[in-house]
Amino acid sequence: MTKVHNFSAGPGILPQIAIENSIKAIKNFAGMNLSILEISHRSKQYEAVVAEATQIVKDLLNIPTGYSVLFLQGGASTQFCMVPMNLLDENETAAYLKTGEWAMRATKEAGLFGHVNVVATSENENYNWIPKNYEIPSDAKYFHCTSNNTIFGTEMFSFPETNVPIVCDMSSDIFSRPIDVSKFDLIYAGAQKNMGPAGVTLVIVKDAILGKVTHKIPTMLDYRVHIKNGSMYNTPPVFAIYVCLETLKWVKSLGGVEAMEKLNIAKAALLYQEIDRNPLFKGTCAVEDRSRMNVCFVLENPEKETAFLTLAKERNLEGIKGHRSVGGFRASLYNALPIESVEALVDAMQDFEKLN
Amino acid sequence: MTKVHNFSAGPGILPQIAIENSIKAIKNFAGMNLSILEISHRSKQYEAVVAEATQIVKDLLNIPTGYSVLFLQGGASTQFCMVPMNLLDENETAAYLKTGEWAMRATKEAGLFGHVNVVATSENENYNWIPKNYEIPSDAKYFHCTSNNTIFGTEMFSFPETNVPIVCDMSSDIFSRPIDVSKFDLIYAGAQKNMGPAGVTLVIVKDAILGKVTHKIPTMLDYRVHIKNGSMYNTPPVFAIYVCLETLKWVKSLGGVEAMEKLNIAKAALLYQEIDRNPLFKGTCAVEDRSRMNVCFVLENPEKETAFLTLAKERNLEGIKGHRSVGGFRASLYNALPIESVEALVDAMQDFEKLN
Repeated sequence: MTKVHNFSAGPGILPQIAIENSIKAIKNFAGMNLSILEISHRSKQYEAVVAEATQIVKDLLNIPTGYSVLFLQGGASTQFCMVPMNLLDENETAAYLKTGEWAMRATKEAGLFGHVNVVATSENENYNWIPKNYEIPSDAKYFHCTSNNTIFGTEMFSFPETNVPIVCDMSSDIFSRPIDVSKFDLIYAGAQKNMGPAGVTLVIVKDAILGKVTHKIPTMLDYRVHIKNGSMYNTPPVFAIYVCLETLKWVKSLGGVEAMEKLNIAKAALLYQEIDRNPLFKGTCAVEDRSRMNVCFVLENPEKETAFLTLAKERNLEGIKGHRSVGGFRASLYNALPIESVEALVDAMQDFEKLN
Repeated sequence: MTKVHNFSAGPGILPQIAIENSIKAIKNFAGMNLSILEISHRSKQYEAVVAEATQIVKDLLNIPTGYSVLFLQGGASTQFCMVPMNLLDENETAAYLKTGEWAMRATKEAGLFGHVNVVATSENENYNWIPKNYEIPSDAKYFHCTSNNTIFGTEMFSFPETNVPIVCDMSSDIFSRPIDVSKFDLIYAGAQKNMGPAGVTLVIVKDAILGKVTHKIPTMLDYRVHIKNGSMYNTPPVFAIYVCLETLKWVKSLGGVEAMEKLNIAKAALLYQEIDRNPLFKGTCAVEDRSRMNVCFVLENPEKETAFLTLAKERNLEGIKGHRSVGGFRASLYNALPIESVEALVDAMQDFEKLN
């Protein structure tokens, strides 16, 4: 099979070993002589998968006691409504940092449930930097931010110091670096970047912030229901959670999120160096806010875009076309992307320079 | 690999060809030299999967124009709240038929959104029959029923004639027999019985019933959002939908739901005949309401239960322990279960008779 360099923004590249072990589980799961696609989620063999995946998440992120780890369905987009539904009453205000498309959608959704205070945004500069030094009103019920902006290629490397509970959408950089979970009250992440395939969403929530709203919460959207039932209130996305387990085991085997961070810094540095060196290309974001996960860049001469995409295609560099909101190119360098793929992209950029 | 007879109530048995093709797609999807677990859902190759799966659903069930077919996340349990959220205002009443555990949960959830009128129930006889000849108030916003009760082993073989829109949870018998979709306004089904693996939910909805409530609907819970975006408003459960496509192609290749119904009638008849003939066993449900999908039965002498489960285990008959609400045994005979598995169960029952 031709080696393809997979720069897809998500669903994105997964570790080969996780894919291989998932195939084994589809053929014969846990010695049951049945496929993982057709077994009861109440079997002890599968309950062990959910328990182990939960434990590895706790271990990798060094999660303190008092937090619950959940595997849910519906993607981060469902969290956009679950968060205010569980935390915000109609007469209360939540503070939102609007740093991109997904932050904007989260902000809009919260407006259905209560008041929203957008504390800062970089919207008028096409979200190409991360606002800092904004004020979070002390009476805000929570502060919501997005740690990595997949579309615009910015990442938060520091979080505000505040007494207001912090809720963070970490969909596209979770497990890419260490985080101090104790500084957050709720973290959520769609799996399909650094954790697994599409179809499952990780939630890490401080138990103490729940149960404080006065309105009714539909059962499936109530975090407490899923906590009480260990992510098994209803049939979970069995296979997607299994692939997450295999991916998280791979992260652990390589040295955890600390090791991932080192690799991710090296990969991002290699590509940004070439973007800054190569006279044909330029980055789109403020240097200090450049994402290690999604590297956005354009050509000084946009007319050559198709030519570079053609060259990339010839070199089996897949998924580098930029999002329509930014244009140009976007290379997603998730955990499972080897540095060799970044080297191949840099080679292509240098060869393109020679040709032009 | 030892042949296992998979009577699991769900997630349940899938066609072997669907499993094999799914493995191929994990290795190399659509000639992309990438795994289906790590490709963009916006790739034209994957968009074709969703389009084809949607079309096969329409073909298999002969869905009239004016209906939309959706693949969503969150299981039937999420539909329990999405249905009233989209169809019922606070001052309105919905009629519910309470025929089992899941019907009960759906009923309870609707109560969060408006008034609920339980038109009939068999709760006081442990849901072992399906009520008939109840009245549906003409001013009810909709009537909700459950076509097959997975836990209690009853199935609706006729639906009421009414001018009130009918909403039906078909999770455990969809694609097992022909249905006249034009008689329903909304049908939903968790995939993990007859359609695919856990993690995706089918919704078939008449467009004209939507947009009539006055309250706000969260974006991800609004059917109209998913209709407008062809089930791709956010990242769909990519692999789960692919397995559904392969399973539905298999149904089509065997002759569609008409052929499935013939096979399912034959399988159920074989097992019920043995239950009625064998003096050790008895069925738990009213004969006319016996489900073809989930066959519930007990021993005349419950003390012998463990002995029969041991014999079943020796014969590689898996998943036949009854749900705690009914006890005894439950054999789920979903589409993909071959008649040979039913014959093996009948053999075990006959051998158990000889031993006792």
